[in-house]
Amino acid sequence: MEYIKDIILKQINFIAETDKLKGVLRKTSPINLDRKENSAEHSWQVILSAIIFAEHSNNKIDLLKVIKMLTIHDIVEIDVGDVLHYEKNNVKNLFEKELMAAKRIFGILDLQQENELINLWIEFEKRETLEAKYATAIDRLMGIIINSNSKGGNWYDNNITLKKIIDKNSHIMDGSKDIWDVVLAILNECVEKGYLEYE
Amino acid sequence: MEYIKDIILKQINFIAETDKLKGVLRKTSPINLDRKENSAEHSWQVILSAIIFAEHSNNKIDLLKVIKMLTIHDIVEIDVGDVLHYEKNNVKNLFEKELMAAKRIFGILDLQQENELINLWIEFEKRETLEAKYATAIDRLMGIIINSNSKGGNWYDNNITLKKIIDKNSHIMDGSKDIWDVVLAILNECVEKGYLEYE
Repeated sequence: MEYIKDIILKQINFIAETDKLKGVLRKTSPINLDRKENSAEHSWQVILSAIIFAEHSNNKIDLLKVIKMLTIHDIVEIDVGDVLHYEKNNVKNLFEKELMAAKRIFGILDLQQENELINLWIEFEKRETLEAKYATAIDRLMGIIINSNSKGGNWYDNNITLKKIIDKNSHIMDGSKDIWDVVLAILNECVEKGYLEYE
Repeated sequence: MEYIKDIILKQINFIAETDKLKGVLRKTSPINLDRKENSAEHSWQVILSAIIFAEHSNNKIDLLKVIKMLTIHDIVEIDVGDVLHYEKNNVKNLFEKELMAAKRIFGILDLQQENELINLWIEFEKRETLEAKYATAIDRLMGIIINSNSKGGNWYDNNITLKKIIDKNSHIMDGSKDIWDVVLAILNECVEKGYLEYE
């Protein structure tokens, strides 16, 4: 029992440490709320979306694995902060910094669980497996749902245009062609309504 | 394609509607943050915990089902609000009110998906299946982790004593005896430190 108790106490410490994700602010605001959203509530929303849209994945996927990835995908931001998707190439050594954060935070757990979570995080970032392709598609879909329901949300403030969105998010189609088709229709409607600049 | 597009648009409307969960405030505060936590970030934290503590479930469980329950368990609060666990018996017709909310919100989706989510929500609330027992154990564990890491958090303000916590949370042992043993040790430590009254 002492051994199991030690494991559980480590896991509780991990949950207490990752509670900090509630304080990591993103660049988007929840629809109709006058504050930035945090990465914990965003993580819940991508998990919910992964469940809801699962039937539209191009390929048969292990949904549990997808959800595990999405649950932990932003935890590294506790150390590194949230970087706007459109600026990721401008941050030097971002992957290395995030990997260091993954090792510190997942390292609170026992080695076996630490390795499982680090590998899931790397798999998500690399976007090579079917599960990672679907999970990242859902993650990218989210900003489009939020901003298109917020009269453009943070698009204008961050100089994000239709061309930029397509350039940086067309990999949604690698996860779900059907969702990407609907996204394009929604984005074009946003341009017509004046929520989004063409270029 | 038009049929699939309609389904996806309904699902996007559902995600936009459930975005409101980010604005539903609970009685607890995140550790070290000077604000109440909302039910969306809480939902993420219970999903993460369900994954992390899964090995301690008394019984072999379908973890994907557990996660689906935890992802949607609080969505009814968009209409009904969050009720403190210790006051649930004092709210008249709470189950009926929440069921009505479930029907309205899940009803944004197609009938098949609506029924799946309503049934999952009812299964969680009834706490009869192995998955529901583990899921509710994790949900109840969360307040104890947060408050014990916040020098008692909301326990004093809400007159919550060790006896009340044991009375209202001992069903954690139906999900995981090992976790319940650790919880009792943590609670006793909180009494010793003066974070929690005995009765």
